[in-house]
Amino acid sequence: MSLTSPLHGVVPPVCTPLDPRGEVDTASLARLVEHLIGGGVHGLFALGSTSEVAYLTDEQRATALETVVDATDGRVPVLAGVIDTTTARVVEHARSAAGLGADALVATAPFYTRTHGKEIAQHFRRLRATVDLPLFAYDIPVAVHSKLSPALVRELAEDGTLAGLKDSSGDEGGLRRLIVELGGREGRANSPAPRFSILTGSELTVDAALLAGADGVVPGIGNVDPAGYVRLYDAARAGNWELAAQEQERLVELFAMVDAGPEADMGRSSSALGSFKAALQLLGVIDCGDTAFPQIQLSAESVALVSRHLRAAGLPPVR
Amino acid sequence: MSLTSPLHGVVPPVCTPLDPRGEVDTASLARLVEHLIGGGVHGLFALGSTSEVAYLTDEQRATALETVVDATDGRVPVLAGVIDTTTARVVEHARSAAGLGADALVATAPFYTRTHGKEIAQHFRRLRATVDLPLFAYDIPVAVHSKLSPALVRELAEDGTLAGLKDSSGDEGGLRRLIVELGGREGRANSPAPRFSILTGSELTVDAALLAGADGVVPGIGNVDPAGYVRLYDAARAGNWELAAQEQERLVELFAMVDAGPEADMGRSSSALGSFKAALQLLGVIDCGDTAFPQIQLSAESVALVSRHLRAAGLPPVR
Amino acid sequence: MSLTSPLHGVVPPVCTPLDPRGEVDTASLARLVEHLIGGGVHGLFALGSTSEVAYLTDEQRATALETVVDATDGRVPVLAGVIDTTTARVVEHARSAAGLGADALVATAPFYTRTHGKEIAQHFRRLRATVDLPLFAYDIPVAVHSKLSPALVRELAEDGTLAGLKDSSGDEGGLRRLIVELGGREGRANSPAPRFSILTGSELTVDAALLAGADGVVPGIGNVDPAGYVRLYDAARAGNWELAAQEQERLVELFAMVDAGPEADMGRSSSALGSFKAALQLLGVIDCGDTAFPQIQLSAESVALVSRHLRAAGLPPVR
Amino acid sequence: MSLTSPLHGVVPPVCTPLDPRGEVDTASLARLVEHLIGGGVHGLFALGSTSEVAYLTDEQRATALETVVDATDGRVPVLAGVIDTTTARVVEHARSAAGLGADALVATAPFYTRTHGKEIAQHFRRLRATVDLPLFAYDIPVAVHSKLSPALVRELAEDGTLAGLKDSSGDEGGLRRLIVELGGREGRANSPAPRFSILTGSELTVDAALLAGADGVVPGIGNVDPAGYVRLYDAARAGNWELAAQEQERLVELFAMVDAGPEADMGRSSSALGSFKAALQLLGVIDCGDTAFPQIQLSAESVALVSRHLRAAGLPPVR
Repeated sequence: MSLTSPLHGVVPPVCTPLDPRGEVDTASLARLVEHLIGGGVHGLFALGSTSEVAYLTDEQRATALETVVDATDGRVPVLAGVIDTTTARVVEHARSAAGLGADALVATAPFYTRTHGKEIAQHFRRLRATVDLPLFAYDIPVAVHSKLSPALVRELAEDGTLAGLKDSSGDEGGLRRLIVELGGREGRANSPAPRFSILTGSELTVDAALLAGADGVVPGIGNVDPAGYVRLYDAARAGNWELAAQEQERLVELFAMVDAGPEADMGRSSSALGSFKAALQLLGVIDCGDTAFPQIQLSAESVALVSRHLRAAGLPPVR
Repeated sequence: MSLTSPLHGVVPPVCTPLDPRGEVDTASLARLVEHLIGGGVHGLFALGSTSEVAYLTDEQRATALETVVDATDGRVPVLAGVIDTTTARVVEHARSAAGLGADALVATAPFYTRTHGKEIAQHFRRLRATVDLPLFAYDIPVAVHSKLSPALVRELAEDGTLAGLKDSSGDEGGLRRLIVELGGREGRANSPAPRFSILTGSELTVDAALLAGADGVVPGIGNVDPAGYVRLYDAARAGNWELAAQEQERLVELFAMVDAGPEADMGRSSSALGSFKAALQLLGVIDCGDTAFPQIQLSAESVALVSRHLRAAGLPPVR
Repeated sequence: MSLTSPLHGVVPPVCTPLDPRGEVDTASLARLVEHLIGGGVHGLFALGSTSEVAYLTDEQRATALETVVDATDGRVPVLAGVIDTTTARVVEHARSAAGLGADALVATAPFYTRTHGKEIAQHFRRLRATVDLPLFAYDIPVAVHSKLSPALVRELAEDGTLAGLKDSSGDEGGLRRLIVELGGREGRANSPAPRFSILTGSELTVDAALLAGADGVVPGIGNVDPAGYVRLYDAARAGNWELAAQEQERLVELFAMVDAGPEADMGRSSSALGSFKAALQLLGVIDCGDTAFPQIQLSAESVALVSRHLRAAGLPPVR
Repeated sequence: MSLTSPLHGVVPPVCTPLDPRGEVDTASLARLVEHLIGGGVHGLFALGSTSEVAYLTDEQRATALETVVDATDGRVPVLAGVIDTTTARVVEHARSAAGLGADALVATAPFYTRTHGKEIAQHFRRLRATVDLPLFAYDIPVAVHSKLSPALVRELAEDGTLAGLKDSSGDEGGLRRLIVELGGREGRANSPAPRFSILTGSELTVDAALLAGADGVVPGIGNVDPAGYVRLYDAARAGNWELAAQEQERLVELFAMVDAGPEADMGRSSSALGSFKAALQLLGVIDCGDTAFPQIQLSAESVALVSRHLRAAGLPPVR
């Protein structure tokens, strides 16, 4: 499904279910895609950070993306993360993703290396020139350890290199400035030109981002409750901001599951990803809640905590 | 004016005008207070970061606070920053502020030293026990280099140590989680208990913070356009979120003045503070736009840029 | 004692003993000065980070400095830390220190505020111009959160603003580059001009710093074992690097006391300062090992651990 | 060449020469290996950060490693970097490196993801268990954004997971503590057990590291002047520390070439790598000084600056 209009709405980063041996569980992944599309989402983001892309071999990445594309069957656009250290490696992922039928690419700035703004610009331009798919910049300093400057994003938006931005920087003030510089809420809505698409990855302030003029959201916990984020989005589009905020509050409460794993025993990222997968298993969507090696797995006690969060949010576990 | 109800609304951190010798210009400061109260603000925060508190001697701090208290004359509550490295030094500022008539105190975690959460809790408890004024925690990692954990804030809110939080952490997601944990939008609004007051220092996303359930805002650029922030606040209180967002966008554009000073020549903080003061001078509120030594001053060219930002925002300079 | 020759050798940052009420224990402090001078040190640094300067009120700072100056009685030079957020406040401390008889001043870059290199240069120049004492720059990013650039230090060394540098940045490679740029090991040793004095605060690599051409060291744990650092220094000066390294190893082992306090219960800084003071109490030098509020105190178990470290290093406790 | 004794001495991270199209220039790389072995180095580290490993595709990595192994022909051990985000991906590189004849592997902690100490331990243990080659931990926080804790390194040293450490953390004090905990200078030298090998990546303080008891060094600028580092190492082994320090000073001066590229125009890493490659081209060792895309290339002016640094260090360019 080509991106004929700007990408908008709820675009969850699709978790990658694994079997107990650590291989991609394609049947579970196909069920997860169905769960998400059934929840009304507007697109899918495969091979993102929440998909544990950094833990998957190239072969596993291909399996996961192929499964998502096939299960989606053109009903919504599929974005593919092409996450690697620098341009040459990212281009290889991009070619693979294009061959597997992705509708758009999502790339970060170079990482591991220390890079300059001019080098980051060259990186995105080369990517766009080499593989002919809409390109989204993925601003995620917690992983990449540099922040895309608003000036750079604006430059690459205006010259057509980027089709959009997935902003996981947590810098909501900076995002607001960028939106204003790109035309503002009304200016962007009424522009005749194809619009640069701004998606927030800040899943706890989606009502705010939409009020500010963002086009959509990429919520990790949208794996667990896609319909909740769709309700939030619909309320916002209808101008019912109180209802949007109310739904956002429910999702904030649900999100507390990310702290299920004790901080002394495991990383915050492992705890969060583990809780999403545990929730999906408890809801009967996927077969096994394991996260990829070397992440520490949630204990039974932590999974019970996830279960309680689900119940409290009106999402009763089926197992 | 004692804080009988939770502090709410627009509470600007009051700039400290200086004369060309670097001393507090009390006449200009009194005019600034009038400008702010005339703009409809709900409180004043003296001796905050935007007040250049870190640049003022104890004597200058006292002069500034006394001037604000006198000029305010009980029309709105006056909060006083008590900014210093650790408890014993902060207590001295707190006693001085109480003696000068402040209605509440605003204190950060210890800085310069490296501190533990348990030590920060002891710090706030000792402060509260020693000086009998409502105490606000000032979460400003960019200055203090530690972040107040939500668990700690909640603990100190629930045991009555803190009357409120001024959140300048930029972590809007974390603030949302805190608000939900403290009762949420509706729960907090309807609570019979005296409410913990949550003020955001993120001046570019105030509509969002109010939608999330924050009580008010402490906007640096509110020195320049207090009436704009009051309109934003009123629209939000009236549930007119589109209008609030529209006003916020105008203020985001105005805020761009903070980059008036070239990055190669001066710090970002000096440029921002310099632009606020230059704007106040251009608007005829204060006599001299100088920032405190050793900050680099804005060039005439940069001041001209500030002037253009004022005009564009509908605030024509008078000089 | 004026600094007629470049400062060199072992210059411990003098701990500030407190009584159980938290006031400066001047008798203990005088005994500590005797302990240090008796150990052969070449200078004393009062009111540094290890002196808990950030925890002391202005009055307590004056008491501590006066006590050190009096007890020293001109036998070695006394440097005084003038630690505060910005220039105007630092100048007040500098005037006080000069009045109390300090032989030199030690100042950091501005902190709490965010500052530019040009502003830091103005800061040091104003300080030097205002109070006529040799001025040392104190590079301590862990407290101040900016690093003095080698280019800036060199500029301020060459124009005579700075008499020396106390480098607690931990950037040994950068320090090596600076030494080479300032003439190198031999060049500096043979220079007819009054020499810029380079003191390292990296107490675990003093042999290395001296081999590189540094002039001396400011070791926190030198409070506990001044004679050990003096032996290290003397061995290095004699060109007996193997002996210097052997002594350094013994001091590294002793230094392990800084982890006496459990990480879950207290900050690393509180644990380190607490261990130094506990050791001084165990050695009979000071009466009470308390650190300043709000720091958590070492438990009896932690103090026992400090005691074992003393014994292992050949410094048997007397209580 | 199997690592029968602990790795020691000078082990440069081998630059990867590229042709103007960006492909590995195997003829230049073979000449570089000859240049290094001719300079007397004790081992070679292929596919490290200085080798631009993060910029090379898997195929280019294989070509580079194969070329180094073939050109070395068993004269010194060849270590291979296996740099990727997490275990599964690193294992693939490790298998490839083993197949290509590497004598040992060098792996970092996971990156891009946020990881916990227990997860890092699992990561190294799985690697060691999966590919039967000596394993070195590569501590490089500037790239990986986490620091290996001394306790973890010690645990993995003592249980035989790790054969050694390449420490590019810049934390010389921490390294000193680790060496002391692992037996100290003498203890380690006289131990009958196979020794854990400690190599510093801090190329400006090699004399210091060797004095502290490190076994060797992995100097990026050792590509340019391998013989200089070998002289430094030999002087240290002979106990001639003054000579070692003198040689180190010359190398510190040479190292200043890393700032050849203007900071406004390119990253510090690109400038450093570009200067090494420019120097190798000027010395006639490699054909083309280009760094990998998207790095900015040094200007002719910057290359001229590199040339002057070579001359000043007694390494006259041949072109």
